[in-house]
Amino acid sequence: MTWKRTATFLCADSSPENGDVVLMGVPFDGTSCFRPGSRFGPHSIRIWSDVLESFSPELDMDLEEIRLGDLGDLEVPVAGWDEVALRIRESMAPLLAEGKIPVVLGGEHLISLAAVGACLDRYPNLCVLHVDAHLDLRDEYESDRHTHATVMRRVMDLLGSDRVFQWGVRSGTREEWKMARSVGTIIDTPSEIRDRLGGRPLYLSLDLDVLDPSILPETGAPEPGGLFFRELLNFLHALRGLPIVGADVVEYSPAGPGMGGPSGAVAAKVVREVILLCEAGRT
Amino acid sequence: MTWKRTATFLCADSSPENGDVVLMGVPFDGTSCFRPGSRFGPHSIRIWSDVLESFSPELDMDLEEIRLGDLGDLEVPVAGWDEVALRIRESMAPLLAEGKIPVVLGGEHLISLAAVGACLDRYPNLCVLHVDAHLDLRDEYESDRHTHATVMRRVMDLLGSDRVFQWGVRSGTREEWKMARSVGTIIDTPSEIRDRLGGRPLYLSLDLDVLDPSILPETGAPEPGGLFFRELLNFLHALRGLPIVGADVVEYSPAGPGMGGPSGAVAAKVVREVILLCEAGRT
Amino acid sequence: MTWKRTATFLCADSSPENGDVVLMGVPFDGTSCFRPGSRFGPHSIRIWSDVLESFSPELDMDLEEIRLGDLGDLEVPVAGWDEVALRIRESMAPLLAEGKIPVVLGGEHLISLAAVGACLDRYPNLCVLHVDAHLDLRDEYESDRHTHATVMRRVMDLLGSDRVFQWGVRSGTREEWKMARSVGTIIDTPSEIRDRLGGRPLYLSLDLDVLDPSILPETGAPEPGGLFFRELLNFLHALRGLPIVGADVVEYSPAGPGMGGPSGAVAAKVVREVILLCEAGRT
Amino acid sequence: MTWKRTATFLCADSSPENGDVVLMGVPFDGTSCFRPGSRFGPHSIRIWSDVLESFSPELDMDLEEIRLGDLGDLEVPVAGWDEVALRIRESMAPLLAEGKIPVVLGGEHLISLAAVGACLDRYPNLCVLHVDAHLDLRDEYESDRHTHATVMRRVMDLLGSDRVFQWGVRSGTREEWKMARSVGTIIDTPSEIRDRLGGRPLYLSLDLDVLDPSILPETGAPEPGGLFFRELLNFLHALRGLPIVGADVVEYSPAGPGMGGPSGAVAAKVVREVILLCEAGRT
Amino acid sequence: MTWKRTATFLCADSSPENGDVVLMGVPFDGTSCFRPGSRFGPHSIRIWSDVLESFSPELDMDLEEIRLGDLGDLEVPVAGWDEVALRIRESMAPLLAEGKIPVVLGGEHLISLAAVGACLDRYPNLCVLHVDAHLDLRDEYESDRHTHATVMRRVMDLLGSDRVFQWGVRSGTREEWKMARSVGTIIDTPSEIRDRLGGRPLYLSLDLDVLDPSILPETGAPEPGGLFFRELLNFLHALRGLPIVGADVVEYSPAGPGMGGPSGAVAAKVVREVILLCEAGRT
Amino acid sequence: MTWKRTATFLCADSSPENGDVVLMGVPFDGTSCFRPGSRFGPHSIRIWSDVLESFSPELDMDLEEIRLGDLGDLEVPVAGWDEVALRIRESMAPLLAEGKIPVVLGGEHLISLAAVGACLDRYPNLCVLHVDAHLDLRDEYESDRHTHATVMRRVMDLLGSDRVFQWGVRSGTREEWKMARSVGTIIDTPSEIRDRLGGRPLYLSLDLDVLDPSILPETGAPEPGGLFFRELLNFLHALRGLPIVGADVVEYSPAGPGMGGPSGAVAAKVVREVILLCEAGRT
Repeated sequence: MTWKRTATFLCADSSPENGDVVLMGVPFDGTSCFRPGSRFGPHSIRIWSDVLESFSPELDMDLEEIRLGDLGDLEVPVAGWDEVALRIRESMAPLLAEGKIPVVLGGEHLISLAAVGACLDRYPNLCVLHVDAHLDLRDEYESDRHTHATVMRRVMDLLGSDRVFQWGVRSGTREEWKMARSVGTIIDTPSEIRDRLGGRPLYLSLDLDVLDPSILPETGAPEPGGLFFRELLNFLHALRGLPIVGADVVEYSPAGPGMGGPSGAVAAKVVREVILLCEAGRT
Repeated sequence: MTWKRTATFLCADSSPENGDVVLMGVPFDGTSCFRPGSRFGPHSIRIWSDVLESFSPELDMDLEEIRLGDLGDLEVPVAGWDEVALRIRESMAPLLAEGKIPVVLGGEHLISLAAVGACLDRYPNLCVLHVDAHLDLRDEYESDRHTHATVMRRVMDLLGSDRVFQWGVRSGTREEWKMARSVGTIIDTPSEIRDRLGGRPLYLSLDLDVLDPSILPETGAPEPGGLFFRELLNFLHALRGLPIVGADVVEYSPAGPGMGGPSGAVAAKVVREVILLCEAGRT
Repeated sequence: MTWKRTATFLCADSSPENGDVVLMGVPFDGTSCFRPGSRFGPHSIRIWSDVLESFSPELDMDLEEIRLGDLGDLEVPVAGWDEVALRIRESMAPLLAEGKIPVVLGGEHLISLAAVGACLDRYPNLCVLHVDAHLDLRDEYESDRHTHATVMRRVMDLLGSDRVFQWGVRSGTREEWKMARSVGTIIDTPSEIRDRLGGRPLYLSLDLDVLDPSILPETGAPEPGGLFFRELLNFLHALRGLPIVGADVVEYSPAGPGMGGPSGAVAAKVVREVILLCEAGRT
Repeated sequence: MTWKRTATFLCADSSPENGDVVLMGVPFDGTSCFRPGSRFGPHSIRIWSDVLESFSPELDMDLEEIRLGDLGDLEVPVAGWDEVALRIRESMAPLLAEGKIPVVLGGEHLISLAAVGACLDRYPNLCVLHVDAHLDLRDEYESDRHTHATVMRRVMDLLGSDRVFQWGVRSGTREEWKMARSVGTIIDTPSEIRDRLGGRPLYLSLDLDVLDPSILPETGAPEPGGLFFRELLNFLHALRGLPIVGADVVEYSPAGPGMGGPSGAVAAKVVREVILLCEAGRT
Repeated sequence: MTWKRTATFLCADSSPENGDVVLMGVPFDGTSCFRPGSRFGPHSIRIWSDVLESFSPELDMDLEEIRLGDLGDLEVPVAGWDEVALRIRESMAPLLAEGKIPVVLGGEHLISLAAVGACLDRYPNLCVLHVDAHLDLRDEYESDRHTHATVMRRVMDLLGSDRVFQWGVRSGTREEWKMARSVGTIIDTPSEIRDRLGGRPLYLSLDLDVLDPSILPETGAPEPGGLFFRELLNFLHALRGLPIVGADVVEYSPAGPGMGGPSGAVAAKVVREVILLCEAGRT
Repeated sequence: MTWKRTATFLCADSSPENGDVVLMGVPFDGTSCFRPGSRFGPHSIRIWSDVLESFSPELDMDLEEIRLGDLGDLEVPVAGWDEVALRIRESMAPLLAEGKIPVVLGGEHLISLAAVGACLDRYPNLCVLHVDAHLDLRDEYESDRHTHATVMRRVMDLLGSDRVFQWGVRSGTREEWKMARSVGTIIDTPSEIRDRLGGRPLYLSLDLDVLDPSILPETGAPEPGGLFFRELLNFLHALRGLPIVGADVVEYSPAGPGMGGPSGAVAAKVVREVILLCEAGRT
């Protein structure tokens, strides 16, 4: 694997071998059909992280008190999902083997498919919590089975539909809604997740477009009518203690290289809380 | 009438004779006193509509299952309200005569005056529901009786004040508030509209600045403290079944030609729901 | 003191001797550590004020019915806090001596320290209400005791910690939270302020970043998860009648000279309500 | 006349009675057919003027050594040219009567018509030098005879076509080019102007879109292939000594209120040089 | 083929069967490795074309006097070059068979490969004139042989290297420069092209990044030190009379859907002149 | 010294001990009086460097063939020049002692003073070549002797005025121009520098605002009428072979953290050529 040096997230250690939780950027947006740019996301998240404190008052935890590594960005081609998927899995496998928790910074949502695959290899009874505005349950999109719009359908192919939970969704085709309801993926409350998880290891896939576009305008497919920041935060905090073994935060999509606006701070604060949740679930 | 070819709204048919609901853009902003630009609105709404699904989960309706036409943009002069008003009325009259429901994409709010006039010719007992941040009840503005700030006063001149209902208002002069309260235009709930309407045909005039400027920053007169997107959506959904015979969505105001930002998706989603409401009221 | 001519806020009188409430801009952002630009704030607030009505429907008061002056902007150096502080105090002293209420337009938060100092000279039993996303209670920041991040600690040095009340805070280091809680500065409701104030004169220091970054993206240290506009407004309106003797509205930070976006309207509306509150407390 | 207080241009005196050259803003853009916004121009020019020195090395003159006044902005309606024209002429007449040289900050190009009219009243043998990308010689535009696209045709109606000189033009209809060539308005060099002027008083009307859009992107009708800044400056400097009795600088068009970008510095530097040329022609 | 309705370029006829020169948009940017967004190019070019006159004073030709069609945008997948190439070729073949001249609006540069292929089928002795900042002669880029960075190498594979002429290039790897010089593709003057062409049919592939980034900042790989607009125009005008049988204008890359800035006018003016050149070569 | 990890410039080695030429960012803009933001410059330069090839065709040199290190960004306080100066000198001294050539990425122009000081310690007969739009020869600015506007006056205090050469200047006060002319700092051609240098070691201080604001709009004090990119490049290339022992490239000023636009590519290309010139002068 080749890694590109980047700024580090807040106070993260640039020596990843020191981390219990390890950040890695995947600047890939090759299937974004409306507005590309999430390739610039990992970089902008790190730059804007500097506006934040390392301390989370609600979780009463501090990034400076945990072991957090930051590997920089994985080098990936602009197009060609198979190669991208391979590199994601090969770079995550050794981290997982050592018991570290990888947190992937997207990039677009399709990368979750490879990341879930890597975690499934290590944790065969893995479940996935999918937080998103969109159902992402199409079987094909533009004749392609591997896109940001089909990613959860492919995840279901890997795990079975009963191990996928969806929260925050508000958009889909009539067929996707029908499927989600028949399969029963949509959950309403954190306690419902806790019940259905029953102690199994959890992968958290968080598409930032679950937030309202006013909160995060810089995203690939803005869907009005989304969550306020505090609604998302309250939901995440209610997950505290769940055994999260891997996570991604995807679809933050600046307008250009080095052109991310203030919603970078939004993405970064979500990442901070996700990191702390991963840590909280370790112990 | 001359029409300018444009992109179409989502999956609309470009042959308007096929439509039961028919979109038409009116790129006029000649009386915008603070920030012009709503002339660029119709175009940007159509471009951003592509980010949306055609299916509305709350209404359980799909644009692909109805007959929707899109006429493109009406050619109008930059200044000179009388001529603009004439063209709006003359282009709407044949649609109304055939029983079609026109949905006008603004442009600024003054265009509602002509659109209401056209509908009134066809439906003499028409009522108007005015959703807006501003009362728009001045009698004159800068010595002019026909401006975006006097439009509802002029509509009252046409219909009488008891057939105008206002919702969402939060700004006006002391005199406008006094008048609105004495006349009793301001209503609080959808059921109150339903009661007062009593089955008469309804024109819906929706000034997008009723939304908070965080939701829709691109507007001619941003007024902080507005509605969240879901508040507006819930209100609209509660109107389901009312006999809407014409509608407009106005005051989305991009910064320049081809320069509309993500709030275009906000405007487009409102338009999608308004179209579906019109359809729902037909049957 | 040298003043720079500026546009005036809404309908303010440009002859300050006519004002009971007097606006003054302080375009200083010399200690902004993340994103500078609040030096451009006073100017942009005045330009965007034109989008507003002078009438506040909730307070039922109108700027046109009070005596409001606008001095323009104080000339201050780019760096060198001591000189800036001196100029602020010397320009406020004569206003306070005449019983006028100064409302300072920032600029960054450190200017509140000098403004509080000037008010304290005139009102020795002054209390301070601090509305902010950040606790600002560090003792030092980058080895400096006078920065936007230490300003409330320095205010405590002046008044004692029991005369400082904090509302809206959501970010700080572990140490700052510990201190705030042990000293008891954080208050929850307007009525609690009223009780603790007990009729003493109040200085209101309002850092606009208390609002969510979606509402006010143009600020020096955006902290996601903040207040909605109506939450802030409701809080302010509940202060009605308190004897506010001075106030500041700070940390609105446009991207450049003459480059403030629509959140200028947000800042301006907050300023309008603060002015009216000052007036309401006079009588 | 009502004037709106504004910031002042660089070191201008805010007491206009002290000025030999007097600035006045006219924030009108009512006939801008493509991209409005020049109403925000005067304000942004003044703000960006602060980046400049008052000294012009090529002219070896300093604004601080002349008597320069700045009246602020004329209050004008959003639409209705007749009223706007009246206010421009009535506000310029007394200045001209006292022998002052007015320099008008646009606003759109149509305002030149009223300004030329005012100067013609005072200087019956006035000639006009028109610097622009566009010929502006249409007889009508959208059935209107008074628009930014017909302004020089109307000026010709006032003065006769032999007293209008055009420089820098690169765009027009086939008919406009034919007319310009048959009448012989287009001149190539400053010395040609000097010859044809023959000592008569000159009005300089400078549409900033004569500059390439890379130099001044913020304009109402950007026309690629324009002048570099130094080409315009060299041309202006070659006019030194001509008896300029009035001037305007128009069509700088920021994206919104308080949203002018760096091309404000371009407009401001042109204004500085025009002011100095006016002064140089006085003596 | 499926076409998406769009606005039309300036005064183009929306019935393509009426055109001798026919525009078609190809909104594909699937291999853009730095900054994507040229998928939004065709749409923004059309919108900004409205700022232009239809008359070109240098060519003394008018778009209104020729037969120009505009097909709208070809529907293409986000990724998957083979399918995109197929659709381009299949949509161009019938146009070419009827003797029409297609002008393709990109999109990224790789689309030229398919367009050249289509023209080659019809004109076996076709030559290609490549105007660009970059040599685009890599054999592979990121292990891929079909990307915007290899496109001219692939064109050479089709035609042979002696039928490719390059002008305006200023960037490449050491290897690309070596190759270009050994093969002799780089030409200096229009007359050299005329000589080497010797009457054969010409395809013009124009990557807008040949212009300086100040002239066209919205592009996928801005390379400082490029051409001024008038340099490019002079070059194009010197091609007048050459038998251009097909052309593309590519790599104009707005920041988002409906978010193209003023450099849209630059792209549109280049397109206008290219259309007129095509027409001039027909007769 | 504390260094902040950053992305690396193009293909630079992140192990600085491997470099003959060594980049170091100094994100300080504490005295920028008009538009701050150059603190965000080093980061944005590195991000945009990725759009460039490592090969310079004019110099026929390739960054991949030299030993280039990149230290990341020096941690500096927001205000307090003395401490900033100390850190710059202490971090440069060991590099210079090993014979390495430091290239400093600004940040504002005042940092050149400390960098020149560090080089002077190592090379007592150092000369300085100052490329800038502004003379920067004030003795004081706002009562401060250490600002971006006085930096070359202070450099003269260090070296004597006969060892400072200025090129590209076009703005200053009457007094600064008088001084520059009496001292004879302004030079016209590269050969003049070569003559006056006479083999002594050279420090190159390059304020990017020497370029026209159309080329580099993102700068602290845009001064219209500047150099085209190729003019600057030609000048730099003519310096080839001069013994440059240290250099800085300053005053690239993005609008915010992670918000640099395309002029980042301009700054990066200048940096690439400066690095190669440093290398060329070594041998």
